[in-house]
Formats: sequence, structure tokens, C-alpha cells
Amino acid sequence: MNWDKMEETLDRLMEQKRHGQLRGALMMVNPVDIAEYMKKLDAENLLLMFRILPKDASAEVFSYMDSDQREMLVESIGDRELTALINDMFLDDAVDFLEELPANAVKRILQYTDPQKRAIINQFLNYPENSAGSLMTIEYCEFSPDMNVRDALKTIKKTGVDKETVYTLYLVDNQRKLVGTVPLHKALIVEEDTLLGKLTDPSIISVTTLDDQEMVAQTVRKYHLLSIPVVDREGRMVGIITSDDIMDVIVEEGTEDFEKMSGLAPAEEPYFKTSLFKLASNRLPWLMILMFTSIISGAIISKFENVLAVNILLSASIPMLMDSGGNCGQQASTLMIRGIALGEVEFKDLPKVLWTEIRVGLLVGSVMSATTFVRLLWLNKASVVMSAVISVSLYATVVIAKAIGCVLPLLAQKIKVDPALAASPLITTVVDASSLFIFFTIASRFVL
Amino acid sequence: MNWDKMEETLDRLMEQKRHGQLRGALMMVNPVDIAEYMKKLDAENLLLMFRILPKDASAEVFSYMDSDQREMLVESIGDRELTALINDMFLDDAVDFLEELPANAVKRILQYTDPQKRAIINQFLNYPENSAGSLMTIEYCEFSPDMNVRDALKTIKKTGVDKETVYTLYLVDNQRKLVGTVPLHKALIVEEDTLLGKLTDPSIISVTTLDDQEMVAQTVRKYHLLSIPVVDREGRMVGIITSDDIMDVIVEEGTEDFEKMSGLAPAEEPYFKTSLFKLASNRLPWLMILMFTSIISGAIISKFENVLAVNILLSASIPMLMDSGGNCGQQASTLMIRGIALGEVEFKDLPKVLWTEIRVGLLVGSVMSATTFVRLLWLNKASVVMSAVISVSLYATVVIAKAIGCVLPLLAQKIKVDPALAASPLITTVVDASSLFIFFTIASRFVL
Repeated sequence: MNWDKMEETLDRLMEQKRHGQLRGALMMVNPVDIAEYMKKLDAENLLLMFRILPKDASAEVFSYMDSDQREMLVESIGDRELTALINDMFLDDAVDFLEELPANAVKRILQYTDPQKRAIINQFLNYPENSAGSLMTIEYCEFSPDMNVRDALKTIKKTGVDKETVYTLYLVDNQRKLVGTVPLHKALIVEEDTLLGKLTDPSIISVTTLDDQEMVAQTVRKYHLLSIPVVDREGRMVGIITSDDIMDVIVEEGTEDFEKMSGLAPAEEPYFKTSLFKLASNRLPWLMILMFTSIISGAIISKFENVLAVNILLSASIPMLMDSGGNCGQQASTLMIRGIALGEVEFKDLPKVLWTEIRVGLLVGSVMSATTFVRLLWLNKASVVMSAVISVSLYATVVIAKAIGCVLPLLAQKIKVDPALAASPLITTVVDASSLFIFFTIASRFVL
Repeated sequence: MNWDKMEETLDRLMEQKRHGQLRGALMMVNPVDIAEYMKKLDAENLLLMFRILPKDASAEVFSYMDSDQREMLVESIGDRELTALINDMFLDDAVDFLEELPANAVKRILQYTDPQKRAIINQFLNYPENSAGSLMTIEYCEFSPDMNVRDALKTIKKTGVDKETVYTLYLVDNQRKLVGTVPLHKALIVEEDTLLGKLTDPSIISVTTLDDQEMVAQTVRKYHLLSIPVVDREGRMVGIITSDDIMDVIVEEGTEDFEKMSGLAPAEEPYFKTSLFKLASNRLPWLMILMFTSIISGAIISKFENVLAVNILLSASIPMLMDSGGNCGQQASTLMIRGIALGEVEFKDLPKVLWTEIRVGLLVGSVMSATTFVRLLWLNKASVVMSAVISVSLYATVVIAKAIGCVLPLLAQKIKVDPALAASPLITTVVDASSLFIFFTIASRFVL
């Protein structure tokens, strides 16, 4: 059904207060779309709509709603109703939601939750942000390797309704150590008395609770998994992470790298949800740092005042040198940062990368500086010496920019600083200063 | 099992030519890891290893190998063996592989494939790159809504071994139109004589063959799907796309945006697989364009030669103005480009975004220019007029850079140009020229 028609129908039923029909209509709509529709409702209608929702859908719709809407709802429904909602949510969604709330609200809500669930939620709230532990859910299917397929399917029939995925069967021994994984489709195509232990994949791919989410995503992608088991230090099974959460991690990590590369503090919320003050304060730190470091470039210019006075062509070439250097450096650093993020480039590749980048710099630099030489000579009627000084400076700038652009991110990774942080804004400053320095050194030698 | 130990064992067995044991050992290793291990083998050992592989694993290992290795293998094995391999591969992997080969090799290989498969492969090879059609596979499970769960499970038992996923059952009518989707876990928890038609999700989420892969990925993420059905224009079911391919799309689209934002032509191959010449030629076009556009900034400087001569502080402030403007513009454009890619920001948001960015610019600009004013006055002992000219220019630059940074990507999207292409390098140039122009206009008014 198309969105506009659906929206229109829901609008009409809301308006006419036909709540019975509305409930029926909502049964036909995907929970994701219900959450999207609810975005435009005010607090009163939101609460009404939420109470009209088919009971089993409300927890799912709630987990797809955005934080503003949730907050509005939390304010209007009581703690007990909220607790019931949390009890119906998948654990990972419940934890995500609770993480958004102020600590005392969490405490208040958790006092009504049953003690067992409360203990688990508290444990989850303690996993470090961006760790496998903070992403995982405990709604998975656990079996003994000695169980046969028939009994496993029976167990799924009984308990599967509350599981986030039943498509991988996790085999554990009596110490709850993970000893195997069976893709459900393997179990479906064999005789029913086959033991699960016989069907297990030969190698077990798992991560531990403290592993970083970026590494988890790389593993899932590498092995084309639908879900990945999470074990504790002793190899005991504690949870799983499903592919939909992995996709969110991939997108989130990509966004973070984009932001860092542009000197932005990573935003917690989408653009339109972020306050003006927050938007400004995410940007200001790097802008201030870079404003101050660019004073170095300014100082270099001041120092060579006498050189600049010789010919205005020298001043006029500064933007070209700075921009070309900045662009060259950024190209190299982008390739490195992305390569590191995807696990394709490591610190040990530095000599190889550096050698490649220098040769690339020599290649592109020769084209750029030859063009510039001819341009200065013909179009600007500059002298041969002046044209040579500027185009040789450009050549050196390009090569050095390529080298700095690839070395800085790899060095950053080595000393455990985020490579994206060492990226374009910082590299621009370093490249600017070096290119101006080279330029003036060459110029003062030949044109004074 | 850990990687080093595995590698060591395989090395030893290879060396000692214990091929029986090697075949046994390989049965215990994940096909992804086998493909990784094979990376270091030369042509001869590669072929040997490949022939030793358990028969049913070879097609899967082949689909995980990288293009160099595949090429080596293709050269050493005959067309018939290759055809057998292709027959064993999932259709989407086979198509990916064939797309890499030169056209006459494809023709030669396809002549041995059975006519039905050949027809399908040819059809797939014709879908536009980056379309849903080019990503999909036809190995899915199709059922009538009138079939009951028992029969569906029997069908899966019989045919499921060759399916890329059995975790969603696709329901089609007798015109092969998609009429419903049933998640397998729903079928597993109900009575076996329930009709599939009763279990279908209320709303059908699907894409068409010509939809762009970025849009497909957004849909899969939005609805938390494991696979998405692909239909033709008449709504007939033609294939599915699975979550592992979607993850690759998300990563690929992210990488492309990173590259474009840094003025790089998108690379087809990973860094270390790309030739030096290709690396250079991916970078040169934008570098040349930007080198020429930066001449505009140079021309502005030349034009105001007399202003620059007044005080070296004016020349020395150029890097700060250019860098700050560039950084501010890039921050804004990055947020827009990412927002557009994730479907969070659209052209119709332009007034709202522009208003936000101008206010952010006014906020951060006030801090930056106040600091600069004080710095010039105190540290550089500049006159009040001189300090005011420079810091007011900085203020204007910051605000204008924010505005340009958000407007250009949104405009680009409106006229169907890739927003990432309109990004940082181009924005830097536009911002540079405007900031220098503002600077000199203000300066020539007050300091001459």
C-alpha cells in the first residue's frame, strides 16, 4: 500500500475518532511505518494512538519511534505501563531506550521490572559504549549438541516467538561454553533424528563482549553472517548481535569518520534534532585549533615579506599552492582513513604506501607543474626564473602533501589515535605550512 | 581455531604433499578463510589446492577469492571445469564473476552452460550497474498462499539446499505476482496445517529491478529486513537481495562518497590492487580543475596589490582566512552530504538548513573573530582599525562559508548531480574566492 494513501486513511480515522477501525487499519501497517506516521502527532494524539495499537505491536512500534516522541510518551504514561512496555521489548532495544533516559528515571522504571530482567538490564547498561556487549541481545536459541533436529524444532515452536532470531542455533556445553553453530536451514533439510552436533559449522566465528563494534561489523561482513554470537572471556555464550544492528553500526561508523575528517565532533543525534548551541559547539574546537595553527602559515608569509615584494605573482600563487597541497593531502588521507576503517590498510603497510604515494605525487605533480609553468610563461608573461620557481614549488608541494597525507593517518592509528581525527583539517594546516616554507625558500634563493 | 595455527598446519600439509590430510583439514576451515589463505599461493599451488578442495566447497571458496586469484585460476583450468564451477555458484556470485571477465571469455564459458541458466545469466548481465537487478539472486523459495506450512517445510527440505536463503517464504499468485512474505520463524511456531496466506506480513516491502542500490539499502535498513524481494514493472517476483550484499552496498556507497568528497574518482579496486597510473589518473582531473579555479583567488590578490602593500599583517592573514573558510564550509557540506545519503535531508529543507547554518555561523564566527581581534591587538600590536578589518572579514567569511557549504550540496542534489561531487574541493575554491574578495573590499575601504 502506498504511503500517501495510508497516511490519508489513518488521518481520516483519527479525525472521525473511529478507534475500532483505526486499530484494524493499524494491523495492516508495518510497525516502522506506524512509528513514522506517529512523528507528526501531538502529545495527546500520540498517547491515544499508542493505546489503540494492537497490544503485541506497541513494544515494536515504540522501539522504532524517535527519541522526542518517546520522551513525550514517557511523560504521559505511568511508570507501570512503561515497565510493561519494556518487558515486551527485545532486550537490546530496551537497553538502547533506557540509555537515553536520565539516571533517576531509569531507576524508577526498573524498580517495577522483574528482578531477573532488572539484573540483566543493569549488566547491559554497564557495557562500554560501542562494545559488542552494548549491542547484543539475549533473545537467541541455545541448544545442546546432543539434541536432535526434531526436538530442536519443537523447542523453537515453543519459545521462538520471543526470540530476535531463530535462524542460527547456538550449541553450548554444560558450562554454557559455545561449541558450535547450526544454520537453521541445515537443520531443515536433514532427517529429523540427526543430532545438532553433527550439523555444526566446522569453525566457530564469535566475538567477545568488549570487542569494538567496528571490528564486529568487519567480522560479520567478512563471513557473510546473519548474526554473530558474543561470548565472555571464558568462552561462555552471553548474547548475539543481529545483521540489522550491524548495518546500523556500519552506517554510524561511516558517519563518524565523515564528521571527524571534517573537524566535527561526532553528533549524537540527526542534524534536525540537534540544538543550535550543540551544532556550534561540535564545530568550534577544531575551528579554533586550526585558526591558531594557520597563524604559523601567516608567520611564514610575514617572515618573507621582502620576497613577496619582488613580484605580485608570488603573492598571487599562494592560494594555488595552498589549495593544491590541501587537495593532494586530503586525497591521500581519505584513501588511508577509509582503508584503515575497512581493515584493508595497516601501519605495517606504511613503507609500501609511502612509496606508492610519492610516485603518485611525482606523476600528478609533473602534469600540474608543467601546466603551471606554461601558463605562467605564456598567459602571465612571467620570466622563466619566476615561472620555474612557482612550478617547482608546486611540484614539491604535491609530493610532500601526498606523503604527509598518507603518513599521518597511519601514524595516528599506530599510537591509537583515531586516524580520521588526524585527517583533512590538520593535514591541511601541516601541508600549508610546509608548502609555503618550500615556496619561500626556493623563491628567496632565486628571485631576490 | 586461530588463524596462525591454521595457516601453519595448512602450510605443512601443502609442503609435505599430504593431499588426503589437506582435504580433511580444509573441511574444518571456513570457506572465507580458505580463500584468504589461498591469496599467498602461486599459480601452481593455487590450482593444486583448488582441486583438493571438497567438491561442494570449491564454488563457495571461488566466490570469496579476489579477482587476481580468480584470473590465475581461470587461466589454468579449462572452460568445462570453469562452467561446472559457475553452475555450482549462486547466481549473483556467478554474475559478479562473469562481469569481471572480458566479453569473449564470457561467451566462451557460457556456451557450455545449460541453456536455461545461460538465458538467466545473460539477462542479469544486462541490468544496469548499481541497480537492484544487478544485485539480486534467483535462489529463493517461492510458494502459493494456499500451501500449508507442512508442505512448505517439505518443499524446503527438498530444494532448500540450493537456496541462498530460506528464511523468508515468498508467496506468489498464478501470474507470479508477489502477494505476500512469510518470515520462516512465523511458520515454525504455528500448527503445521496453517495456510501460508494466513501468516503473511500485512504490508509487502519490495523494490523493482531498476531501483538504485542506495535506495534498496535504505529500505532494508528502515524495515530491518534479512532479504528484500525484487519485482519487475508488472509486480512479478524476479529475485531477492540478501543482507550480506546490502552490507557491501552500504560500505561501497560510503567509500564512494568519501572519495568524491576528496576529489577522487571512485576506485573500482582496493588501494593495493590499483595500478600506479590508475591511482594518479583518478586524482588528476579534480586537482587540475581546482588548480585552475584557485587562479581566481590569485587574481583577486593581484588586483588588490596596493592594499597588501599597506601592512604585511594583511598578507599574513590570508592563510587564516582561507583555512577557516575552507574548514567551516567543509563542516557544513559534510553534514549535508551525509544527511542526503542517509535520506535525512532533502532539497525542500534548504530554507530551514540555510537559516540554521547562518545562525551557527554567527555563533562560531563571533567566538573566532573576537579571539582574533584580541590576538591582533595584543600579540601583534596591530591598530584597532587593522584588527577590526581582519576580524570582521573572518566573521563574514565564516558565515558565508557555512551558507555556501550547505547550499551547494542541496542544489547539486536538486539538479541531479551527486552532492558529494559538489563537495569540499569545489566548496573550498568558492569559499576562498569569496572570503578574499570580502577581505580586500573591507580592507581597501578602511586601511588605504
